[in-house]
Amino acid sequence: NERADAWIPLEQEKRQAINADLQATVVELLELFHDAKQSHWNLRGPLYFPLHENLQEYADTYRKFADLLAERQLQIGIPTDGRTSTIVETANLPKFPGGFLSDRQVLDIMTERIFTIAKRVRSRVESTAKNGDEVTSNKFQDLSYELDKQVWQFRVHMQ
Amino acid sequence: NERADAWIPLEQEKRQAINADLQATVVELLELFHDAKQSHWNLRGPLYFPLHENLQEYADTYRKFADLLAERQLQIGIPTDGRTSTIVETANLPKFPGGFLSDRQVLDIMTERIFTIAKRVRSRVESTAKNGDEVTSNKFQDLSYELDKQVWQFRVHMQ
Amino acid sequence: NERADAWIPLEQEKRQAINADLQATVVELLELFHDAKQSHWNLRGPLYFPLHENLQEYADTYRKFADLLAERQLQIGIPTDGRTSTIVETANLPKFPGGFLSDRQVLDIMTERIFTIAKRVRSRVESTAKNGDEVTSNKFQDLSYELDKQVWQFRVHMQ
Amino acid sequence: NERADAWIPLEQEKRQAINADLQATVVELLELFHDAKQSHWNLRGPLYFPLHENLQEYADTYRKFADLLAERQLQIGIPTDGRTSTIVETANLPKFPGGFLSDRQVLDIMTERIFTIAKRVRSRVESTAKNGDEVTSNKFQDLSYELDKQVWQFRVHMQ
Amino acid sequence: NERADAWIPLEQEKRQAINADLQATVVELLELFHDAKQSHWNLRGPLYFPLHENLQEYADTYRKFADLLAERQLQIGIPTDGRTSTIVETANLPKFPGGFLSDRQVLDIMTERIFTIAKRVRSRVESTAKNGDEVTSNKFQDLSYELDKQVWQFRVHMQ
Amino acid sequence: NERADAWIPLEQEKRQAINADLQATVVELLELFHDAKQSHWNLRGPLYFPLHENLQEYADTYRKFADLLAERQLQIGIPTDGRTSTIVETANLPKFPGGFLSDRQVLDIMTERIFTIAKRVRSRVESTAKNGDEVTSNKFQDLSYELDKQVWQFRVHMQ
Amino acid sequence: NERADAWIPLEQEKRQAINADLQATVVELLELFHDAKQSHWNLRGPLYFPLHENLQEYADTYRKFADLLAERQLQIGIPTDGRTSTIVETANLPKFPGGFLSDRQVLDIMTERIFTIAKRVRSRVESTAKNGDEVTSNKFQDLSYELDKQVWQFRVHMQ
Amino acid sequence: NERADAWIPLEQEKRQAINADLQATVVELLELFHDAKQSHWNLRGPLYFPLHENLQEYADTYRKFADLLAERQLQIGIPTDGRTSTIVETANLPKFPGGFLSDRQVLDIMTERIFTIAKRVRSRVESTAKNGDEVTSNKFQDLSYELDKQVWQFRVHMQ
Amino acid sequence: NERADAWIPLEQEKRQAINADLQATVVELLELFHDAKQSHWNLRGPLYFPLHENLQEYADTYRKFADLLAERQLQIGIPTDGRTSTIVETANLPKFPGGFLSDRQVLDIMTERIFTIAKRVRSRVESTAKNGDEVTSNKFQDLSYELDKQVWQFRVHMQ
Amino acid sequence: NERADAWIPLEQEKRQAINADLQATVVELLELFHDAKQSHWNLRGPLYFPLHENLQEYADTYRKFADLLAERQLQIGIPTDGRTSTIVETANLPKFPGGFLSDRQVLDIMTERIFTIAKRVRSRVESTAKNGDEVTSNKFQDLSYELDKQVWQFRVHMQ
Amino acid sequence: NERADAWIPLEQEKRQAINADLQATVVELLELFHDAKQSHWNLRGPLYFPLHENLQEYADTYRKFADLLAERQLQIGIPTDGRTSTIVETANLPKFPGGFLSDRQVLDIMTERIFTIAKRVRSRVESTAKNGDEVTSNKFQDLSYELDKQVWQFRVHMQ
Amino acid sequence: NERADAWIPLEQEKRQAINADLQATVVELLELFHDAKQSHWNLRGPLYFPLHENLQEYADTYRKFADLLAERQLQIGIPTDGRTSTIVETANLPKFPGGFLSDRQVLDIMTERIFTIAKRVRSRVESTAKNGDEVTSNKFQDLSYELDKQVWQFRVHMQ
Ligand SMILES: [Fe+3]
Ligand SMILES: [Fe+3]
Ligand SMILES: [Fe+3]
Ligand SMILES: [Fe+3]
Ligand SMILES: [Fe+3]
Ligand SMILES: [Fe+3]
Ligand SMILES: [Fe+3]
Ligand SMILES: [Fe+3]
Ligand SMILES: [Fe+3]
Ligand SMILES: [Fe+3]
Ligand SMILES: [Fe+3]
Ligand SMILES: [Fe+3]
Ligand SMILES: [Mg+2]
Ligand SMILES: [Mg+2]
Ligand SMILES: [Mg+2]
Ligand SMILES: [Mg+2]
Ligand SMILES: [Mg+2]
Ligand SMILES: [Mg+2]
Ligand SMILES: [Mg+2]
Ligand SMILES: [Mg+2]
Ligand SMILES: [Mg+2]
Ligand SMILES: [Mg+2]
Ligand SMILES: [Mg+2]
Ligand SMILES: [Mg+2]
Repeated sequence: NERADAWIPLEQEKRQAINADLQATVVELLELFHDAKQSHWNLRGPLYFPLHENLQEYADTYRKFADLLAERQLQIGIPTDGRTSTIVETANLPKFPGGFLSDRQVLDIMTERIFTIAKRVRSRVESTAKNGDEVTSNKFQDLSYELDKQVWQFRVHMQ
Repeated sequence: NERADAWIPLEQEKRQAINADLQATVVELLELFHDAKQSHWNLRGPLYFPLHENLQEYADTYRKFADLLAERQLQIGIPTDGRTSTIVETANLPKFPGGFLSDRQVLDIMTERIFTIAKRVRSRVESTAKNGDEVTSNKFQDLSYELDKQVWQFRVHMQ
Repeated sequence: NERADAWIPLEQEKRQAINADLQATVVELLELFHDAKQSHWNLRGPLYFPLHENLQEYADTYRKFADLLAERQLQIGIPTDGRTSTIVETANLPKFPGGFLSDRQVLDIMTERIFTIAKRVRSRVESTAKNGDEVTSNKFQDLSYELDKQVWQFRVHMQ
Repeated sequence: NERADAWIPLEQEKRQAINADLQATVVELLELFHDAKQSHWNLRGPLYFPLHENLQEYADTYRKFADLLAERQLQIGIPTDGRTSTIVETANLPKFPGGFLSDRQVLDIMTERIFTIAKRVRSRVESTAKNGDEVTSNKFQDLSYELDKQVWQFRVHMQ
Repeated sequence: NERADAWIPLEQEKRQAINADLQATVVELLELFHDAKQSHWNLRGPLYFPLHENLQEYADTYRKFADLLAERQLQIGIPTDGRTSTIVETANLPKFPGGFLSDRQVLDIMTERIFTIAKRVRSRVESTAKNGDEVTSNKFQDLSYELDKQVWQFRVHMQ
Repeated sequence: NERADAWIPLEQEKRQAINADLQATVVELLELFHDAKQSHWNLRGPLYFPLHENLQEYADTYRKFADLLAERQLQIGIPTDGRTSTIVETANLPKFPGGFLSDRQVLDIMTERIFTIAKRVRSRVESTAKNGDEVTSNKFQDLSYELDKQVWQFRVHMQ
Repeated sequence: NERADAWIPLEQEKRQAINADLQATVVELLELFHDAKQSHWNLRGPLYFPLHENLQEYADTYRKFADLLAERQLQIGIPTDGRTSTIVETANLPKFPGGFLSDRQVLDIMTERIFTIAKRVRSRVESTAKNGDEVTSNKFQDLSYELDKQVWQFRVHMQ
Repeated sequence: NERADAWIPLEQEKRQAINADLQATVVELLELFHDAKQSHWNLRGPLYFPLHENLQEYADTYRKFADLLAERQLQIGIPTDGRTSTIVETANLPKFPGGFLSDRQVLDIMTERIFTIAKRVRSRVESTAKNGDEVTSNKFQDLSYELDKQVWQFRVHMQ
Repeated sequence: NERADAWIPLEQEKRQAINADLQATVVELLELFHDAKQSHWNLRGPLYFPLHENLQEYADTYRKFADLLAERQLQIGIPTDGRTSTIVETANLPKFPGGFLSDRQVLDIMTERIFTIAKRVRSRVESTAKNGDEVTSNKFQDLSYELDKQVWQFRVHMQ
Repeated sequence: NERADAWIPLEQEKRQAINADLQATVVELLELFHDAKQSHWNLRGPLYFPLHENLQEYADTYRKFADLLAERQLQIGIPTDGRTSTIVETANLPKFPGGFLSDRQVLDIMTERIFTIAKRVRSRVESTAKNGDEVTSNKFQDLSYELDKQVWQFRVHMQ
Repeated sequence: NERADAWIPLEQEKRQAINADLQATVVELLELFHDAKQSHWNLRGPLYFPLHENLQEYADTYRKFADLLAERQLQIGIPTDGRTSTIVETANLPKFPGGFLSDRQVLDIMTERIFTIAKRVRSRVESTAKNGDEVTSNKFQDLSYELDKQVWQFRVHMQ
Repeated sequence: NERADAWIPLEQEKRQAINADLQATVVELLELFHDAKQSHWNLRGPLYFPLHENLQEYADTYRKFADLLAERQLQIGIPTDGRTSTIVETANLPKFPGGFLSDRQVLDIMTERIFTIAKRVRSRVESTAKNGDEVTSNKFQDLSYELDKQVWQFRVHMQ
């Protein structure tokens, strides 16, 4: 109803732009969640144990930030869309390969995918600030640190 | 390699049938995971707090059983497929509705979907046993109890 | 209402038989709960401390399994009956003796009673499976292990 | 034996009166324990989740105070009687209804029953003090606060 | 003394403006703390349990952020003023109603009050940044997310 | 409604007198809560660390007892009044000083204020018992021990 | 100093009588603490394990109540005296026997000693109330329950 | 004695067959426990850390299941035999190699040994069910899942 | 290798400036860590206990932020330099005094040193933002709050 | 009996000398336990909070080492003597002063007493080793570190 | 390789003697581990509960010290040998009896066996010190205290 | 002052020699702490995850033993010197290399450095005992076991 609609703290003119960045990130994190689980499961090779364990921790990170950002969408009055079909259609990443994966393959594929999202999130740190929502930008900053850390930890395996 | 391939405890002739039941369930649980999160987020109405909280717990249950069953696929020598596109294509459930959902709607939609999967899992308790893998059947029994419990807890809201 | 009634995962023709085994066990476990507490309280003799402590743990086991099985009744669409009068009328065990009890008496009486229920539960493991509900049978199997363990631990005091 | 009988700290002439109040309360709390569990299980309606959860907590409260007070009976040299038949015969409450219960019904029935016991316990706070056992009165005071709190929390649902 | 006064890391010319935003927020959070407790206590109606519980959590949030921000005032060399008379005089919110409150009333009144403060805090995220203290602005951003979340969770009860 | 109004365990004629003592104490404890926080924040001098830490613990004690006693008011059917304006108008303590406070000043002011309330609570231990509510008196006794302990711990700093 | 001396919440004329009961109990509990430890150490016989363990728990109970009651002495403005020589001179119990002790001896000696103190504490519940300090009486009531429970648990070994 | 001997819940004619499967498994698990510890200790090579850690976890799994199954033997009235000489004589596995072991060697040897036991346990899931003890079969199912998981996790290192 | 080098989310042209601020802070925090430990150990005087304890907590804060910021350097593709010789050469603080330190001296020296670093960190909050890395600026903001708090807590000892 | 007497691992000729050192230490630690509690209670002055808290921790240390060493006496076949009269007669320390104690006095008296025992324990580290029981000497070494640490922490208050 | 072989901190000439003591103890502790478990399982008689529980704790102690000492062998460059056949051949204790064991028998047999190992360990405290490895001797001292304690606790059951 | 100086339990003539060993070890451990952190950060290669994690644990071990030994210096009356310049000047190890480090390099460099300190600590176990302080020697023995374990765990990666 109208009364309840008036109870949204963020200024109305800012909502669409901020929501666009949030919605995109929620979907990408949910895709990364499944990518990390898929790697956690189908992984093979001498690096099995440490990668199996850290991929689970990465997956948990994606899942928790997706919740944090999706609930930010609700706070600004807009429903989130984290449906599986929406993930497939809008995550904008190459289809993840099926079947077994060697540890080298997992490192290569996952580093590339996390790196791609890390770049996008970084640009959203700026766009949300420019669009006048430092609160959302602040959450993207926290996420950005985590993604950059994951990229580092996987990248150095190959350096 | 061949040597490693020989190290799979389940008899080879049983693997395909058992895997079929596992693969179907993994995908359905991952779909339910997103359905529950989608409801957790977009929910509105006087039952918000208890439903928001219990939907999160249901989502955690789906996620943990998906891991348990996907790793059973690996144990029997077959890669799992939990990719987002696979979920969309094979979960065999109507597309989840977008946008806000009233508490009544959530109860109705989710009860129907969990009930559908609960029925399928129940039949897999039997098929895996008939196909000679009591170990997998046992895990489906644990899952079946949980799904039947969720259906009960949501169903009685409307009785 | 009818719609909600259709949401019961167990096939309708199986429900009465499975419920009969569940209802009987719930009532027996609630009776054993009070028997164990009664012994925990009125106990005397040199074995006081270890029996007092273990009877409490046994009582907790009965209470938790009663909850698990009663909620299985609800899952299959039938109300449970754990009322005190129902326990008295249907637990089908001799009336528990009043007043102080020596440690020897407690060991003797309780071993006999737990043994009696353990036998009944064992037969329900089979009947529920035969009646087509492996999920319920599985929970009876877990309970059966616990009851058999208690019988062993009390029995060896007298051997 | 006589020697041991002499080791009861409460003066002998006070014991029967104090025990009468304790025995009555133990039996009533055990009845309430089953009433709360029965409601926890057979409950239906939109208030299912919060009532299901709080009824379990109430049941735990009854169970723990029953133990505390029954052990006070033993301290003053008298066996407690918490047998199921004793509960049925002496709890002095109307028979609890069988079958499903709507949330409204549960609130109504349980508030009435807890209120009834709360009144009795309150009068025992006074009678035990008058009969010269402030230690027992003190435990009744703690219980009284808890029962009065439960009555409040259920009553306001209907106000 | 002068020496100690020189040990304040924030540049002197910025202190008054930053302190004004901090002082106003501390007082408003302490008022909200009492509003939430008052609602937690005097609440009536079918939503009693979930609202009673969440209002306590909201109250804890206000209390902890008040401490965090008041200690920021001290860090920048200025005493905080969280006295009860100061709250009454400067929180700049309508007087909270006395007596019992229905769940509907609590949702309505509290959403309005939290929304009002959420708007003010949002503007302080900007003013503190513009006045050159990103550290304080960062804390306001964290608080802003929490207040916006509370407004959402209460607002949707009425949508 | 009338039916619900009948569900108040404390005899009606006792309620006003008991409530008067409870209401006065709730308000005083909420005032002390803010006094302790104000001291926790604006404190200076060599005793900073231990006083800062213990004032926080004292504040937590006041807050928890205020909740316990306010909920006792509700139990006896009367709304509590913990609004900020009510605290200011009825706590009946001198206005707390603003600005920085030396450790000596804090010890002096707080000992005086806690001592004043400790005396009042002590007299309410008696009045509530005399007015026939030992349950409330019992809670005042627990609070009285805590306040007397705090007065001791602060007083000895100056002896 | 005089100012600080005026900050003692208990009325001056009551202090000596209350302190006498507290001081006697502190000393007796410290004696029981050593008696229980002496038994915990020098015990022999088939009941070694449960008695060794429970004597340690009893000793912990004595130690914690001694602290609680000694600090009550300080609250009412009087130093406590828990010095070893004071224990020996004023605990008013027979000298504890040296050397090894059979389990039977420990049960006999300790039951007698705890029973003796339990009787004294019981009378102090009354005397402190009669002397006008319900707060202290309340703590003695809690202690009384614990001592009566210990006497029961040891006494029944011999019944 | 005879009376106690009658208190064994499992039907007498089933006991020998079930015990044979339990006894064999207990001995094999105790052998695997030492194999895993031997590998945990003498391991060398680049995979040291993750294998050292996981071998300890595997060893803990063997130890806990050995306890669970040995106690099942006692429940059915037959003593277990977990003596070191019995392990050596009846575990029916090649003698474990002495001296240092490379990570490759450990993976190879342990996978082979766990695989061997996993196959045997799998066949006992069936034989115990066929011999009429679903309770024991159920415990073998749980163990079977764990052993199959270990074989998978080691096998994929070499794939 | 080049491929891996391309996987650094922060734009290349920003890296040197951001790294300069991070490297300087890491080194300063490691120096402060040793300063705080040196004070924790060699401290004397009546404020020993609270300062000893809080200096350890401050040292833990420095250590944890040094890890967080050093790992940010790695994320942006540059090795950190936390070697002891680098600390000595580049922390840019006066040499810490050797030997015993009175509590007054510790307060004076440490406040001065923390204040110096707090000022530098504050300026880096701005420079990193100006140089285009809000993610790093955000971490400096968190650190800045902590350092400003420490300066306050030590400073007020002397006011 | 003789058989059991033969089961004492320490060589018989060593027992008396080792026991003498153990017995003396047990008694001294029990005396220090009461000294620390006496100080914890009767303490006054500006250092009240940190001393009150640390004296409790010291008392806990004495109590735990007394248990460890008394049980060593039992291990070497000799009963311990920790009776209150034995403490008074053999702890060989000046009588502890009664009444209130300023913080200065506590520091002075306790440092002197702990220092005295620390010296004795240090000499027993050597005598037990010389008398051939490195196991006991090892426990004295652990105790010696703790006592030396306490002396340091109290001594520096006065330096 | 040679380089790595040079990285063994213990002087080469000491290694064989120290290893001999370590290897013997590891094997004996592993034998005791199985003896304690065998007793834990096959035990009968009135002391069942406390012995069953304490034998499990003793078994855990043997297992943990075996790990600590086996890893000391590795530290000094020599592989450990904890294989089951090695235990049987070198533990140098009589074969443990099969079948049920009364509580008396368990006490008798286990006391004798632990006593035997306790004596050997005691002599190794000295031999390792004489052979120049105080670090290993120190670990034997810790073990010696534990074994002597166990002998005491079992021995006194029969005294 | 002189009085306090007399309160040092270790005999004066022993202090300088013992302190020399302690001071050297404190400085070396602080250097190793930074070496381990530097490796934890700049590490690259396939062994990244397990080495990154274990290097952090090693660093924590160095830090905690440095605290334990530095506080031993204070106990014997001498200030410790853990200043960064002192570490650089007296740790007596080659300068640690800057920049990225492959996993092989880290294993090689760190094994060499820990081995070097392990040898020195081992000699101090003896020198402190010879110089008459078994208490300090005992702490060096504990440290020696930890360092020897670390050398083993790194060394075997290359064997
Ligand atoms: Fe969420
Ligand atoms: Fe997993
Ligand atoms: Fe339940
Ligand atoms: Fe109990
Ligand atoms: Fe604070
Ligand atoms: Fe509350
Ligand atoms: Fe205390
Ligand atoms: Fe067991
Ligand atoms: Fe790190
Ligand atoms: Fe002990
Ligand atoms: Fe290990
Ligand atoms: Fe320290
Ligand atoms: Mg099963
Ligand atoms: Mg009273
Ligand atoms: Mg009370
Ligand atoms: Mg920010
Ligand atoms: Mg009372
Ligand atoms: Mg089955
Ligand atoms: Mg199962
Ligand atoms: Mg910003
Ligand atoms: Mg932030
Ligand atoms: Mg030694
Ligand atoms: Mg040691
Ligand atoms: Mg030693």
